Amino acid sequence: MPHPAVQPAVADVRMRGFTTRATVDAAIAWIDSTLLPVHELPAETVSLLQAAGRVLASNVVSPVDVPGFPRAMMDGYAVVAGDTRGASVQTPLPLAVLGTCLPSAAFAQAVSAGNCVKIMTGAPLPTGANAVLPVEQTRLEGDRMLAMGQVAPGKHVGKPGEDVHAGDLVAQLGRVLRPQDIGLLSSLGLNELTVVRRPRARILITGNELLPMGTPPTGTRITDSNGPMLAALVARDGGEPISGPIVPDDRDAILAAMRDDADIVLVSGGSSVGQEDHAPTLLAQHGELAIHGIAMRPAGPAGMGKLDGRWVFLLPGNPVSCLCAYDFFAGRAIRALAGRPRKWPYECVRLPLASKLASVVGRVDYARVAIRNHTVEPIAMSGGSALSSATKADGFVVIPMDTESYPAGTEVEVCLFG
Amino acid sequence: MPHPAVQPAVADVRMRGFTTRATVDAAIAWIDSTLLPVHELPAETVSLLQAAGRVLASNVVSPVDVPGFPRAMMDGYAVVAGDTRGASVQTPLPLAVLGTCLPSAAFAQAVSAGNCVKIMTGAPLPTGANAVLPVEQTRLEGDRMLAMGQVAPGKHVGKPGEDVHAGDLVAQLGRVLRPQDIGLLSSLGLNELTVVRRPRARILITGNELLPMGTPPTGTRITDSNGPMLAALVARDGGEPISGPIVPDDRDAILAAMRDDADIVLVSGGSSVGQEDHAPTLLAQHGELAIHGIAMRPAGPAGMGKLDGRWVFLLPGNPVSCLCAYDFFAGRAIRALAGRPRKWPYECVRLPLASKLASVVGRVDYARVAIRNHTVEPIAMSGGSALSSATKADGFVVIPMDTESYPAGTEVEVCLFG
Repeated sequence: MPHPAVQPAVADVRMRGFTTRATVDAAIAWIDSTLLPVHELPAETVSLLQAAGRVLASNVVSPVDVPGFPRAMMDGYAVVAGDTRGASVQTPLPLAVLGTCLPSAAFAQAVSAGNCVKIMTGAPLPTGANAVLPVEQTRLEGDRMLAMGQVAPGKHVGKPGEDVHAGDLVAQLGRVLRPQDIGLLSSLGLNELTVVRRPRARILITGNELLPMGTPPTGTRITDSNGPMLAALVARDGGEPISGPIVPDDRDAILAAMRDDADIVLVSGGSSVGQEDHAPTLLAQHGELAIHGIAMRPAGPAGMGKLDGRWVFLLPGNPVSCLCAYDFFAGRAIRALAGRPRKWPYECVRLPLASKLASVVGRVDYARVAIRNHTVEPIAMSGGSALSSATKADGFVVIPMDTESYPAGTEVEVCLFG
Repeated sequence: MPHPAVQPAVADVRMRGFTTRATVDAAIAWIDSTLLPVHELPAETVSLLQAAGRVLASNVVSPVDVPGFPRAMMDGYAVVAGDTRGASVQTPLPLAVLGTCLPSAAFAQAVSAGNCVKIMTGAPLPTGANAVLPVEQTRLEGDRMLAMGQVAPGKHVGKPGEDVHAGDLVAQLGRVLRPQDIGLLSSLGLNELTVVRRPRARILITGNELLPMGTPPTGTRITDSNGPMLAALVARDGGEPISGPIVPDDRDAILAAMRDDADIVLVSGGSSVGQEDHAPTLLAQHGELAIHGIAMRPAGPAGMGKLDGRWVFLLPGNPVSCLCAYDFFAGRAIRALAGRPRKWPYECVRLPLASKLASVVGRVDYARVAIRNHTVEPIAMSGGSALSSATKADGFVVIPMDTESYPAGTEVEVCLFG
């Protein structure tokens, strides 16, 4: 066998992989240990019209009663309740109609014994009246209303503050604002709200082999998929993605980008222990590499730590591993920083497996699956590198570390993508 | 009893309410009958970075193979597979190492019998090599690699097109794009996508009693809650809300606003049969009032139809009724126009009732409920007007028309807000 002169090879040990790996639980525990129980980012003020889906940064106490006045809850006649005593279909009692009270303005005259005002739902109750006789219990006869039923004082009248009292805690710090919250807060006269600022997540894509989005792949160069994918994931989880140009596999360039302004840094690519994997050693040298190498598949070469006070997540360049490491780790930190629930933003369902789902004891598996005929089918793909396995999937099943495989028929929890 | 001179009262019949009401099912059937099975709005082109959550308006077929070249799936050595025949820990076979192949570029030299190239996962396989021997099955001795295992041709080599083949249908018309779709589409070299244009929903708030968002309620005037709430709902469902100033209770003003540019019009307030309820008669006179009055609570006075080719939904001014009518009807039309699934965008769970949930045979009820200790508790509020009943609720239960009430302990389906 010929032995030609060789180019120097790097130390073999650097290709040997991780000697030990952290568990998924340990990695999640580290993330949680570094985050306050509530959001920690400063608040910002936004218009009510921009506030849906944002997280309240302070309690909202109502400055006013809603409604601020007694109002009719039915279409009918504002009356002095005592005037209807004894009224029935057999014994209609006549009352003079002073006019009509619409929601738009207070009625100018007062109601008193013997008269009434026609009133529409929502209109302010005229002075002197203390009940509304529903229109169904009346008859109009010329300029008189015939009461054909009786009402007690307060009947069909909405009291001031019935919806909200001045001083009520209307919405609590930490609440993810829903459309109806926005409506209720608007009814108090508010214009703006104080919400948690979105965590700014720098998306740092490394790899000399990568071409930027919009450039067709050519020769041995591939087009970046992780940058646009991570931007969408960050936005979904309440963060503000900050994208930049692809960073070359160069220690100084990567360190500078990791130190650029952000709350959290997602480094895609070069996360493992190979010779071009600079981010882990940079993080260890200049900050804290808390976790590196995780007992899971895919995304085993993921890592995380802190640098200059910001969170840094090392995501493998393999797109499925990147998605998986984001889902397990980086997304959790972004949601927590945003003040949102930390758990996955996926709806989960329990369904039986159509066929065996294989795994290995000692690692957590993130298995992409399809749902067909109310059963769960593993997506059969060679290796975790094919992002199409995650686009063809309806969701994923997490197979815990102590489980070798799930036989066909096992009911499993499927977390549904999107 | 005195009979003072009265202001003229409007015809009593106008306060009598609806003589007949459509069923909820009939209203939904009308909506569906007016919409094409697929989206019908024109498409627009957006950047991949803006496309997550949007709906694809045309099929995407891959113009390229991904990957476009054979690549290493493991860290190890690119070899001629035959060179490893018979290799084992006991019988290591030496191969000369020509150098290292990184993902960034094709290796300049060809591999041939007797030599090999160190290769990193993802790197293009050098010419002449046809397999990768994993690093774990090798040992480095000076400038030679000792093969301690055998590999068959093609082993640990990713084939061109393994993720996506040129010509593959990668994403189908109508798909709501997920983050991983964006990633996969980026890997094809795409920069933009054709997506369904967002339906433009004009939010038309009527009512002389209303003050605009940001104005504290005063006297008998209340501050609009429905405008900001509807804007948030429309955006959630994939529409583009168009808000304007509050429209006075004036037929000409309302008709002009209903005819303003939009795909769909949501009229809030004046939807019933009272003297100030102009929208239904305007719709009947100038377009089609298909449904008016629905057997449900709240939102009984809702209506819908078409005017100049656009959908018009008449939503009661009462905020809870407005939310309910949006949820049942207008939201469905917006989601359909946006190309999204028509069903509710709420996650639903089945849980037992902690106490009786009352309804009435002959109408559908939209009951706001809280979930406490894994049971469902009705929110006890006087009347449907209090929007705080929908902010305090965790979700709602729909009680069908043929059901009088659900006793405590009944398992009901709760649709969870937000």
